[in-house]
Amino acid sequence: MNEESIKAILNRVQQGEESVENAFQKFRNFPFEALEDAIIDHHRPLRQGFPEVIFGENKTVEQIDQIIRAILKKDDPVLATRISKEKAEILCKTFPQAVWHKEARCITIEQQPVEIKGKGTILVISAGTSDIPIASEAIVTAKIMGNRVEQLFDVGVAGIHRLLAKQELIQSANVIIVVAGMEGALPSVVGGLVSRPVIAVPTSVGYGASFGGVAALLGMLNSCASGVTVVNIDNGFGAGYAASLMNRDK
Amino acid sequence: MNEESIKAILNRVQQGEESVENAFQKFRNFPFEALEDAIIDHHRPLRQGFPEVIFGENKTVEQIDQIIRAILKKDDPVLATRISKEKAEILCKTFPQAVWHKEARCITIEQQPVEIKGKGTILVISAGTSDIPIASEAIVTAKIMGNRVEQLFDVGVAGIHRLLAKQELIQSANVIIVVAGMEGALPSVVGGLVSRPVIAVPTSVGYGASFGGVAALLGMLNSCASGVTVVNIDNGFGAGYAASLMNRDK
Amino acid sequence: MNEESIKAILNRVQQGEESVENAFQKFRNFPFEALEDAIIDHHRPLRQGFPEVIFGENKTVEQIDQIIRAILKKDDPVLATRISKEKAEILCKTFPQAVWHKEARCITIEQQPVEIKGKGTILVISAGTSDIPIASEAIVTAKIMGNRVEQLFDVGVAGIHRLLAKQELIQSANVIIVVAGMEGALPSVVGGLVSRPVIAVPTSVGYGASFGGVAALLGMLNSCASGVTVVNIDNGFGAGYAASLMNRDK
Amino acid sequence: MNEESIKAILNRVQQGEESVENAFQKFRNFPFEALEDAIIDHHRPLRQGFPEVIFGENKTVEQIDQIIRAILKKDDPVLATRISKEKAEILCKTFPQAVWHKEARCITIEQQPVEIKGKGTILVISAGTSDIPIASEAIVTAKIMGNRVEQLFDVGVAGIHRLLAKQELIQSANVIIVVAGMEGALPSVVGGLVSRPVIAVPTSVGYGASFGGVAALLGMLNSCASGVTVVNIDNGFGAGYAASLMNRDK
Amino acid sequence: MNEESIKAILNRVQQGEESVENAFQKFRNFPFEALEDAIIDHHRPLRQGFPEVIFGENKTVEQIDQIIRAILKKDDPVLATRISKEKAEILCKTFPQAVWHKEARCITIEQQPVEIKGKGTILVISAGTSDIPIASEAIVTAKIMGNRVEQLFDVGVAGIHRLLAKQELIQSANVIIVVAGMEGALPSVVGGLVSRPVIAVPTSVGYGASFGGVAALLGMLNSCASGVTVVNIDNGFGAGYAASLMNRDK
Amino acid sequence: MNEESIKAILNRVQQGEESVENAFQKFRNFPFEALEDAIIDHHRPLRQGFPEVIFGENKTVEQIDQIIRAILKKDDPVLATRISKEKAEILCKTFPQAVWHKEARCITIEQQPVEIKGKGTILVISAGTSDIPIASEAIVTAKIMGNRVEQLFDVGVAGIHRLLAKQELIQSANVIIVVAGMEGALPSVVGGLVSRPVIAVPTSVGYGASFGGVAALLGMLNSCASGVTVVNIDNGFGAGYAASLMNRDK
Amino acid sequence: MNEESIKAILNRVQQGEESVENAFQKFRNFPFEALEDAIIDHHRPLRQGFPEVIFGENKTVEQIDQIIRAILKKDDPVLATRISKEKAEILCKTFPQAVWHKEARCITIEQQPVEIKGKGTILVISAGTSDIPIASEAIVTAKIMGNRVEQLFDVGVAGIHRLLAKQELIQSANVIIVVAGMEGALPSVVGGLVSRPVIAVPTSVGYGASFGGVAALLGMLNSCASGVTVVNIDNGFGAGYAASLMNRDK
Amino acid sequence: MNEESIKAILNRVQQGEESVENAFQKFRNFPFEALEDAIIDHHRPLRQGFPEVIFGENKTVEQIDQIIRAILKKDDPVLATRISKEKAEILCKTFPQAVWHKEARCITIEQQPVEIKGKGTILVISAGTSDIPIASEAIVTAKIMGNRVEQLFDVGVAGIHRLLAKQELIQSANVIIVVAGMEGALPSVVGGLVSRPVIAVPTSVGYGASFGGVAALLGMLNSCASGVTVVNIDNGFGAGYAASLMNRDK
Repeated sequence: MNEESIKAILNRVQQGEESVENAFQKFRNFPFEALEDAIIDHHRPLRQGFPEVIFGENKTVEQIDQIIRAILKKDDPVLATRISKEKAEILCKTFPQAVWHKEARCITIEQQPVEIKGKGTILVISAGTSDIPIASEAIVTAKIMGNRVEQLFDVGVAGIHRLLAKQELIQSANVIIVVAGMEGALPSVVGGLVSRPVIAVPTSVGYGASFGGVAALLGMLNSCASGVTVVNIDNGFGAGYAASLMNRDK
Repeated sequence: MNEESIKAILNRVQQGEESVENAFQKFRNFPFEALEDAIIDHHRPLRQGFPEVIFGENKTVEQIDQIIRAILKKDDPVLATRISKEKAEILCKTFPQAVWHKEARCITIEQQPVEIKGKGTILVISAGTSDIPIASEAIVTAKIMGNRVEQLFDVGVAGIHRLLAKQELIQSANVIIVVAGMEGALPSVVGGLVSRPVIAVPTSVGYGASFGGVAALLGMLNSCASGVTVVNIDNGFGAGYAASLMNRDK
Repeated sequence: MNEESIKAILNRVQQGEESVENAFQKFRNFPFEALEDAIIDHHRPLRQGFPEVIFGENKTVEQIDQIIRAILKKDDPVLATRISKEKAEILCKTFPQAVWHKEARCITIEQQPVEIKGKGTILVISAGTSDIPIASEAIVTAKIMGNRVEQLFDVGVAGIHRLLAKQELIQSANVIIVVAGMEGALPSVVGGLVSRPVIAVPTSVGYGASFGGVAALLGMLNSCASGVTVVNIDNGFGAGYAASLMNRDK
Repeated sequence: MNEESIKAILNRVQQGEESVENAFQKFRNFPFEALEDAIIDHHRPLRQGFPEVIFGENKTVEQIDQIIRAILKKDDPVLATRISKEKAEILCKTFPQAVWHKEARCITIEQQPVEIKGKGTILVISAGTSDIPIASEAIVTAKIMGNRVEQLFDVGVAGIHRLLAKQELIQSANVIIVVAGMEGALPSVVGGLVSRPVIAVPTSVGYGASFGGVAALLGMLNSCASGVTVVNIDNGFGAGYAASLMNRDK
Repeated sequence: MNEESIKAILNRVQQGEESVENAFQKFRNFPFEALEDAIIDHHRPLRQGFPEVIFGENKTVEQIDQIIRAILKKDDPVLATRISKEKAEILCKTFPQAVWHKEARCITIEQQPVEIKGKGTILVISAGTSDIPIASEAIVTAKIMGNRVEQLFDVGVAGIHRLLAKQELIQSANVIIVVAGMEGALPSVVGGLVSRPVIAVPTSVGYGASFGGVAALLGMLNSCASGVTVVNIDNGFGAGYAASLMNRDK
Repeated sequence: MNEESIKAILNRVQQGEESVENAFQKFRNFPFEALEDAIIDHHRPLRQGFPEVIFGENKTVEQIDQIIRAILKKDDPVLATRISKEKAEILCKTFPQAVWHKEARCITIEQQPVEIKGKGTILVISAGTSDIPIASEAIVTAKIMGNRVEQLFDVGVAGIHRLLAKQELIQSANVIIVVAGMEGALPSVVGGLVSRPVIAVPTSVGYGASFGGVAALLGMLNSCASGVTVVNIDNGFGAGYAASLMNRDK
Repeated sequence: MNEESIKAILNRVQQGEESVENAFQKFRNFPFEALEDAIIDHHRPLRQGFPEVIFGENKTVEQIDQIIRAILKKDDPVLATRISKEKAEILCKTFPQAVWHKEARCITIEQQPVEIKGKGTILVISAGTSDIPIASEAIVTAKIMGNRVEQLFDVGVAGIHRLLAKQELIQSANVIIVVAGMEGALPSVVGGLVSRPVIAVPTSVGYGASFGGVAALLGMLNSCASGVTVVNIDNGFGAGYAASLMNRDK
Repeated sequence: MNEESIKAILNRVQQGEESVENAFQKFRNFPFEALEDAIIDHHRPLRQGFPEVIFGENKTVEQIDQIIRAILKKDDPVLATRISKEKAEILCKTFPQAVWHKEARCITIEQQPVEIKGKGTILVISAGTSDIPIASEAIVTAKIMGNRVEQLFDVGVAGIHRLLAKQELIQSANVIIVVAGMEGALPSVVGGLVSRPVIAVPTSVGYGASFGGVAALLGMLNSCASGVTVVNIDNGFGAGYAASLMNRDK
C-alpha cells in the first residue's frame, strides 16, 4: 500500500465511490498485518519509500512464498535476497513472473516496470571476481529501487592503472558503492578520486588473517579518504538500499 | 598516452628514428605516465569549496600554525579538529579571526561567510550527554561545508518517547547523523522512522564491555534498519563530511 | 564439626584416649567434613518443583532416553532442550506422552498438570522471525516451571511503532524476556518502557560483523536502560529459568 | 489516532471538508502521533519512588551540581555514582545533607527517610577485597531504592569453606548479587546453592589474561548454574537496580 | 668445539698448516657444530619409557599405520590420539593387539605390560559429561606413561557438594588434572582444597559466549587458587603427559 | 605478453615486417584484457616480472579453464593455486601438459622450460608434517618463478637438534622461508642463525587456542630475531613469490 | 597456625598444660579470621602447605600492614608481591626484619630460617632483560617456599647457542620455570630438551601485536613440546608457587 | 668483534705475532659476554652481519650506557632505538660522538664511517605525517647498516596521484619499505607497481577501530599484491634491518 493507493482510496471516498466504513476497514490494519510468522510492514513504503525486503537466508520456501503473496496483493515490487539456487527454482515455478538473479542470489518481481526515481547514476565497483556476488546484490537492489546503475568489476588496488583508466565512468556517478574483501583498500582510493558519497562494502572474501571480512571492514572504517561510510560485511543489499536513498531527492 | 602518442612512437621506430629499446622503456610504465595531470584536474573540483581539514591530534601547535597559514593564503576556509584547549588558546591568539568550538574541540576560520550549498537540512541526533563532543564535531564540519544543520540531543532509546516527540523535526531532515555510544541502538530506531540516509557514528562512551566504542560500532553495523551506513568510532568529522556530500547535488 | 564435637576430641586428647596425631588428622579437613549433609538438605528444596533439565545438544538418544527414565521414576516433569528433529522422533515413539515443541526444539513430559506457581505473567518478546526458536525455548521452559506466559513476536526496533502498539500487553507483565539478534537493541527500548525486570537474550542471528551473536550480546550488556540483565547467546532456557525464579515468591 | 479520529478524517474527506492531500499528510505518521502522551503516562510510574541516577564519570562538578538541584526540587532522593573523591568533597560542601560513600564512590541525598519497599533481603556477595568498591555501589543503590541489604565479602572460590560456612545467610536472601573479578566463578557456586535469582557482576579486577574483566564476564555468561543473569563489567549500580526490581511486587 | 680443538686450529694456523680463511670458516658456526651429538645424548633419556605419541587428527590412516609400524619395531608402546571411529576400525583390524579407547578417541598398543613409574596417584576430575572425552584422553595418556590413575566425573561447581563429598579421594592424589568447559571454574575450587599441583584443561564444551573454550581457558588462567597451571583447550593428552612428569622422580 | 614479445613486435615494426596500425592493435588493450569474469593483467610480467597467478579457491573449473587459456595464448607460464583434487582432475584432462602438485594443491604449465633467474638458493623449512601443504605451495611457486629450491621438513623447535644438525644447508641459502603452525617459534630460531632474509609463514595447523593460525601469526610478528618478515596465514604462494623477488637482482 | 603449632596445642592439652576450653577458643575461628577488609585464611598452611600471600597491587599500605601483622602473629613467613617502591619503603621502616626484593617487587619476612623442603632444584630461565622482574618474582616465591633455586637469564631463542651452552644446568633441574615475552617461544625449546615439568610464564613485554602478552601466552599454550603448562601473563608468583608444589613430595 | 678483527688475530697468530694461548683467551668468551643485566651477543656480526641493537624502551640510562660502552670496545657501530628525549640528552653528554636522531628516536655512534654494502637503494615510503617517526627509524637503521636510502613521505592512497607522480623514484629502488597506519592500504598499491620486495610496516596511528595498528596490520597481511611481507606494528627498525639483508649479496 503506497502513496498512490492510499490517495486512490481517499479519492474514491471523496468522490463517493467508496464508503467511509469500507475505507476504514482497508486502513484498519494498515500499518502492519500479521502473517503467521512475520508481520509485514506495509507502512514502510510510505515511511521509507520502499516495500519490505525478504531476507531469505533463514527462511523456508514456504515462509518466503507466503510473504511474496502478501506483498503481491499490495501491488508492491518484490525483492528477496540470499535465495539459494534450490529455493529459487521452487519459487520461480510458483511465481512465473519472478526473475532469478543467479550471481546476486536474489529474486525480484516487478509488478509494473520500475520507474526511475534516482537523480543520477549509482556506480558499483568491485575489487575481485570473488566480490561479484555481493556487488550484484547491490546492483539488483539499486535497480529495483528505481536507479540507473553502472558497474566496474575487477579493479583491485594492486593493479591501480585498471581503476585509473576508468576515471570518466567514476567521475560521472552520483553515488558509488565499492565492494572489496581482503585488505579492503579500494574505497580509500576511490574516495580520494571523487567528491561524491562512497559506500564501502567489506566482503568475507579472503583467508587466514582476513577473519571472514574483519580485515576489510576495519580497513574501510579507518579509511583515510573522507566521504566514505561503511555497511556490514557482505551487506550488498544494505549498500544498494542506502545508495538509493542518497540518489533520491527528499 | 593516447592513440596518437603510441602511434607516434611506433612510427618513429618504423622510421628508425627511435630504437626498440627506447620505445620499450617508454611503454614500460605506460598506464600511469599520462595520468598525473588528468587526475589532478579531476582532483581539483573535489576540494573546491571544501575546507582543507587539519586533524590536530598528533600535530604540534607549530605544525598546525604553519598549515593554517598555507590555507589562509589560498583564501580557503579553515577547519582544524581534535584541538586541545591548550593548543586552541595559543592558536586563537595568533589568529584573532579563529573561532574555538569548545565542545567540538574544533577551530574554524571563515575568511568569507560560508555559502549554503546543501539542498536540505542535516540533522544531528545524539543519544547521551557524553556523545555531545562528537556530535558537535559533526555539526561544525557540516556547517563550514555549507549546510543548514539542526540538532536533537539526549534522546537515547531507553526513553524512546523523547525521540518520538520530535517526529516532525526528524522527518524534515534531508540527511541524518546519529551519534551514540554504549549499545549504539539509536540509529536503528531512527533509520526505521525515515526514508533518508542515516549516518551512524559510534562513540567511545561507555565502560566495561563497551570496549571503547566497539559495542556501539557492532550494533550499528548490524542495524536491522536499512539505509544506515557507519563511520569510525568518534569520527564526527567523517560523518559531517559524508553528510555534506549526500546533501549536495552532483 | 561443631563446638561439641571439637571439644569432644580435645577431651579425648586430654584424657589420653586419642593421640595427638589422630586428633590432628581429624582437624585437617575440618571445614568441609560436616557440610555434605547440610548442603544436600539446603540443596533439595532448590530442585523441588523444578524439572531436571536435559541439555540434549551433545548427548546421544540413548543417553537422553536413560535420563528421561530416571526423571520419570521420580514423578518429576521432564524438559529436554536442544533436541534435533531426528532425536525427537525416536524419543516420541519411546515416550508416547512426550510433547515435541518443534520451533523450540524441546521435548516435555508433564506427568501431572503443571501447577501455576508464578505470581504474574512472563512476557517473551522477540525481534525477528529468526529469533523465534530461542524465544520458544524460553516459553516452553517458563511454562513447565509453572508460569503464565505471553508472547509478542517480530517487533524489532526498526519498526518501533509495532512495539509501541502493544504497550498494554508489555505493561501488564511481571517479568519480561527480550530475545534479539543483530544489534540487540530491543531490550534497551523495552527496558525504558517498564519498571519490571528485563532479561535480555542475544541470539546468533545475523551475519558478518554480528560475530555469531557477539554484537547483540555487547549491545545488551551496554544497555542504557536500567533493570536489564543478560544471559548467554541463544540461551533461551536460561532466560526462562531465571524469569521463573523472579516470578516466584521466596 | 483511534477508530473515531480516522473515521472523522474520512468523513471530512467524503464531505469535501478536507482535501485528499491533507488527509494523506495526517495518515503519514499515524502510528506515532498519538503515542507520546500515553507513553509518558506509562513512563511516569516507572520512575516513581526510584531516584534519578547521575552517572558521574564523564560529568563536571558543575553539571552534577545542576542535576542534583533539579532532583531536589522534585523532592526525589539523589543517587550519584562514579563520583571521585575530588568531586565528592566539593559537592558535600555545597549540599551539606549529602552522604559520601567512599568505597562505593557514590553520593546520596535522602530528602526523607527511604521507605522499605522490597519484600525480602538483597544479599551482596563479593569474591575479593578488590571487588568491594563495585559491591558497595550495588549496596548503596539497593538501599536507596528501599531494600534491606546484607553483605558477605571476601569469600572467593579458592577457599570455598568460607562461603559454605555462611549457608544460613545465603539461603535467607530473596535476591543475590555476586561480584567477582579474575575467573568470575563465584556466581556459579552461589547459583548452585540457592533457588533465588542471582545477578552476576564481573569486575575489572585482575591482570594479564583477565583483560579488564572479560574473563570474569565470559565465566559468568557461561555459568553452569541456572538462574544466573549478568550485567556489564563493574556495573554495581545496574545490579543493585535490577535486584530492586526483582525484590518488589509488580 | 672445546678448548683443545680451538687451540688445535690456532696451532695449525701458527704452523702455517691451515690458512687464516680456513680457520675463520671453522670459527664461523662455532657455537653449534659441537653440540649436535651432545644434545642427542641428552635428548635420548628424555624419550626413554615414554611412548612416541601420534597426533592423529590431520593424518591419514596410511600415515598412522606407517608410524605405528616404526614404533612397534623399536618395542615402544604406541599411543595415538584424536583417532576417529572410522580410522580406529581400520587400524584395529591391521593391528589386532591395538586397543581402541572409544571415549578418549585413542588407540594404544602395549607391547609389554606398562610398568608403574609414578610415585603417587593422578586424579582426573571432570565437570560435565561432555568433558569426558578430553578427561579420558588424559587418563589413557597417564596410564600408558606408567601411572596409577583415578577418576572423578560430573562434579561441576554448580553442585559443589558433589565435589566436597569426595574430599578423601581428592586429598589422596599426588597430581590432579581438572577438565572443564563453560566457565572453567572447577580448577579454582579444587586448587583451593589441595596442596598438590593442579593441571587445568579447558574444553570446547559450551555455546555462544564460550567461544569454543576461550571462556574456560581465561577462567583457568585467572584462577584465584595458587598451584594451578593450564594447557591448551581440549589438550587432554598434554595434561596427562605433564602430570606424568610431575608424578615421577627426576 | 612479456618483454621479449613486446620487443619482437617493435623489431618487426622496425624491420618493416609489421605495420604501425597492426602493432597498435596489438598494444591497444595491452595492459588488461577483459574476460567474462576477470580482467587478466598481462601488463604484470613487465611490471612485476611474473604472469598473473590464478587463486583457485573461489573459482569454478570453467572460470579457471578460461583464464588458463588466456594465459597460454600469451606464451606465459601458468600457476594455479588452491586447486582441489576434483578440479585438478578435470583441468589435467583438458590441459594434458598441466602438472598437478598434489600436496601443494597447485597446477603448473610450463610452456617452455623455466629459466633459472634466482641468484642463490631458496630454502623452505617446515616445522611439522601438517605444515607440508603450505610449504609445498611455496616451493612450487618459487620453482616456476625460476629459482633453485631446497627443502628441510619436520624440524620443529621442540627437537632443536634436528634443526641444528642442518646448519650447513641453512647457512648456504640466499633466502629462507619458514613455515610453522602452533606456536610459530621456528622463524625466530632460524632468524637467529643466519644473516639472510627469513620469510615466516604461519599455518592454520593447531587446535584450541591456536585460533586457526593466529597464535603462530602473532608469534612470528613478535619474533625476537631481526630480519624476519611475515605473510598471511597459510600463504605459501605469497612467501614463494616474495622470496623470488628477494632472490633476484633488480 | 601450621601443623607444628596445632600439634603443640594438642600436646599441651594432652599434657594437661592447657585446658580444653582454652584450646577450643584458639581453634574457634581457626579456619578463617576476619580482618577489617580481608579474611586471612590461616587454615591454608595445613591445606595447601603455605601461608596466605599478599597481592599488594590494589592494596593500600595500611591494608598490607594489617595483614602482615596478622600473619606474623601466627609465626608464619610473609610474602607480599607487587609492592611498589613507595610502599616498600614505608613497610620496611615499620617491619625492620622485612627484606625488599627490588627487581621482584616483593617483600619477605622470614620469622625463622626457611627450611628446604624441595627435593630438587627449581631453575628459572628468562628470555630477555625485560622479563627479569617476573622471573625474580618466581625466584623469591620459590625460595621462601623452601626450594633451592637456580637462574639462567637472557637466553632468548634468537641466540639459541646461549641456551644450549647451559645444557648441564638445564638438565640438572627438577622443575623449570621459563619466563618470556614477545613470541614466547623459549618454553617450547626448553621443553624439548628436558624430561621434567616446564612452567611457562608469558610476560607483557613487547609492543604492537604482542598485545600485552597475549602473543606469548598463545605461543605457550600451543607449545609443540609436551610437558609444558602455562600460567597467567606476568604471574611469576603463580609459577613459583606451582613449581614448589611440583618439587615437593606429597 | 667482526670478521676483520677475527682475521686480524688469526693473521697475528699466523705471523707469530701473537701466541696461541693469547688468541685463545680472546676467543674464549667470544660468543657472548655477560654484562650485569644483558648478555651482549658479539658473535652476531659474524652470524648475522650486524652488531647487537639496543632496544631502549624498557632500559634505564645506566643500562644503555653500559651496553654502549661494551659495544664501543669491540669497535662496532652503535644503534639504540626507542630512546626518549630525556635519555638521549644524558647519553649524548656522556658520548659526545653520539648522534641523536630526533624524529626516529634513535642514537647512533659510527666509530668509523659506515661502508656502503647494499647493492641498490632502499626506498622508505610513508603514508601520513604521523607515520614519519617509524619511517625515520627504518631509515636510520638501513643507513647505519650500510645502505643508500631514499625517502618519499606523505603519499597516502586517498591522493593516489601524489604516489603515481613519483613512479621513477619508486621504480629505481631495490627494496621498498612502506609505512602506513589507519587502513594500511599503501603497500598493496606500491606492491602492484613494482617487481621488487616490499616490506610493509603498520603503525599505531589512527583512532577508534584502528585498534592501535591492528587494522593496518590486517590490511597489510591481506594485501592483494604479491611480494609484500609484513613486520610488527611500529617496527621501523625491523623493516630497516630486513631490507638491509635483502639489499645485500649473500
